[in-house]
Amino acid sequence: MSKTLKTTALTADAFAPYGDVIEISGAPDKMINQGMCGRYHDLALLDFNDGRAGISLFDARARALPHVVDMVERHPMGSQAFLPLSPLRFLVVVADDTDGTPTNLKAFVTTPGQGINLHRGIWHGVLCPLGTQGKFAVIDRIGDGANLEEHWFDAPYVVNSVD
Amino acid sequence: MSKTLKTTALTADAFAPYGDVIEISGAPDKMINQGMCGRYHDLALLDFNDGRAGISLFDARARALPHVVDMVERHPMGSQAFLPLSPLRFLVVVADDTDGTPTNLKAFVTTPGQGINLHRGIWHGVLCPLGTQGKFAVIDRIGDGANLEEHWFDAPYVVNSVD
Repeated sequence: MSKTLKTTALTADAFAPYGDVIEISGAPDKMINQGMCGRYHDLALLDFNDGRAGISLFDARARALPHVVDMVERHPMGSQAFLPLSPLRFLVVVADDTDGTPTNLKAFVTTPGQGINLHRGIWHGVLCPLGTQGKFAVIDRIGDGANLEEHWFDAPYVVNSVD
Repeated sequence: MSKTLKTTALTADAFAPYGDVIEISGAPDKMINQGMCGRYHDLALLDFNDGRAGISLFDARARALPHVVDMVERHPMGSQAFLPLSPLRFLVVVADDTDGTPTNLKAFVTTPGQGINLHRGIWHGVLCPLGTQGKFAVIDRIGDGANLEEHWFDAPYVVNSVD
């Protein structure tokens, strides 16, 4: 028996308990290059326990709805940012933590142009570009140690549609 | 009297003296998400003198050719990575340093999908998305201190075409 997970649009306020929305919004913090370029400054809380920041690229296959969420994972040693390299939408599933168990799952759908930074230790689903292959820049922790925990659900969740 | 600067295609080998090309090439270092996503791991040398890594977004106006290079700049305290958030081409002007003066300028044109990481202290031109507005994720140093030097040329360089 699966449980349905409704989606909502990704906004900075709604996502604040889980991480940062990385997006161009409002006026730039600074104009550079003789007025030709706006800088939106320092949009994510990078947090790497005894490691260092690195840039990797992820090449993710397209996902379709309905999407089954049978597992979430978390990285106890570092934050993890995802920046799509094309203006696609992706599904972001996150959860609270109750004594080591993911609870109160939420599903967000991005607007093209939005990226996210998951704060350290936040339970989250797999990378889900919707309807198209997705390439992402990923800024996360480079270092040794056990930085991946998975939780598989006995009763999976299902995202049926973009609500 | 301006000097003409020829362009070449951006490749990792040709760019190695100046920085890293951040691109998907060959087989992934690791498959994740039950085989649905390839990770190309740790593609850039991030190097931040007494600061920290941050993620910012740059919104740059379109540039057209011919493009006049009347100034290059460098950041003595940190590397700076540029990842286009759409599959555009951008012009990358870099130079060697001779006793504090930029010399031996080179101009590269990216292939859509390529990003770059300029190593700490490398002279470089302004951000130049070709023919279209460009939004970029920028991973650079967040911190105090004088991290910008500019050099204005008496005789500018001109990039006339993509060669």
